Amino acid sequence: MIKPVSELARRLGHTFSNESLFELALTHRSCGNRNNERLEFLGDSILNFVIADDLYQRFPGAREGQLSRLRAMMVKGETLAEVARELNFGDYLRLGSGEMKSGGFRRDSILADSVEAVIGAIYLDAGLDTARGFILRWFEARLNSLDLEGSVKDSKTRLQEFLQSRRLDLPEYELVSVEGEAHSQTFHIRCHISLQPSPTEGVGSSRRQAEQEAARAMLVAIKQEASA
Amino acid sequence: MIKPVSELARRLGHTFSNESLFELALTHRSCGNRNNERLEFLGDSILNFVIADDLYQRFPGAREGQLSRLRAMMVKGETLAEVARELNFGDYLRLGSGEMKSGGFRRDSILADSVEAVIGAIYLDAGLDTARGFILRWFEARLNSLDLEGSVKDSKTRLQEFLQSRRLDLPEYELVSVEGEAHSQTFHIRCHISLQPSPTEGVGSSRRQAEQEAARAMLVAIKQEASA
Repeated sequence: MIKPVSELARRLGHTFSNESLFELALTHRSCGNRNNERLEFLGDSILNFVIADDLYQRFPGAREGQLSRLRAMMVKGETLAEVARELNFGDYLRLGSGEMKSGGFRRDSILADSVEAVIGAIYLDAGLDTARGFILRWFEARLNSLDLEGSVKDSKTRLQEFLQSRRLDLPEYELVSVEGEAHSQTFHIRCHISLQPSPTEGVGSSRRQAEQEAARAMLVAIKQEASA
Repeated sequence: MIKPVSELARRLGHTFSNESLFELALTHRSCGNRNNERLEFLGDSILNFVIADDLYQRFPGAREGQLSRLRAMMVKGETLAEVARELNFGDYLRLGSGEMKSGGFRRDSILADSVEAVIGAIYLDAGLDTARGFILRWFEARLNSLDLEGSVKDSKTRLQEFLQSRRLDLPEYELVSVEGEAHSQTFHIRCHISLQPSPTEGVGSSRRQAEQEAARAMLVAIKQEASA
């Protein structure tokens, strides 16, 4: 079931003047000529600029090479696909029937492209400051976790350190299901911690990736709890 | 002789609140740790965004691949070095003594980087709209000459077509000098047309490149004449 984009817009917290632009941003090229590729081109450049600007201010002592590396980590497909999953873009993607059947809404590249296209749509709809606000919100936790050595601690490590610092039990990762054929499996993982009553879920093309996803979802859940 | 950056700022038409930022943008890494590389990182992302945005609006029918190709042509080092030459950045570059002696102020890569760094400095000094204004002014003629087949007509062709359309004599390209050793020669060319009393000059690492430069300078001169 493809859900209406108005629902996603509401959840993101933006009222589009031109909602068809938002729908276009979620329309994959497998649907035909009217698709999100042009918006993706535009959004990619906005994302690169906003992240570059943030890193420039955030790390006044960083050399150019370090800034480039940090940005590459932020805007690479894997990171963008994580963002798309956190925001549930998969439920709202318009895909051609072939991509639909083969589970395109879970594919990293399609998810990543949709994030860039949505950024492009928000920019055209409401200007750079609004687009910048969304980008920085979506990337805030990742940007905060960067250090100059250019390593982002992965989500499992960060979750573990968070729990250890509070002398809590370590998380448990439960394998819920494995779907698909050998060369294109999808793993579903649940992450349980004593602090949170409900587990979080992660989906990925490897067990490790699905665990990272579930851990990241848990970090988001903890943060939401803390700021509620 | 390195000229004061305030002179260049005046010629560009921007009064810097923080002129040391502008000086930094013109300071090559051969001068030491305080150099323009960070500003170049920032300016590169601004340039990419502004050009992407312009192309998106300019070519509503273009596919993503075409837009990417057109942008690549606009932001490639060769184009940026041309922009730097048109704006005489070479006269204002701060170079280490080694680069100075070897003529670094004429080197494409150093010139191209300085354009990006200056864009970064203008952005930090005066915001995106001001930076966008400068970029679009500097690239206006090139953007106007783009067509969707992704080919920019080169300057010699454009100058020739301009003159033919007015039934004027074709331009003459005069070789003024060739400097340097065989593997790193610098060609100086003058372009003469009957319409303009003074010739324009072009410098390049090949005769063809120097002619293109001289032709482009002539197109700029004609345009300035026309708008005066």
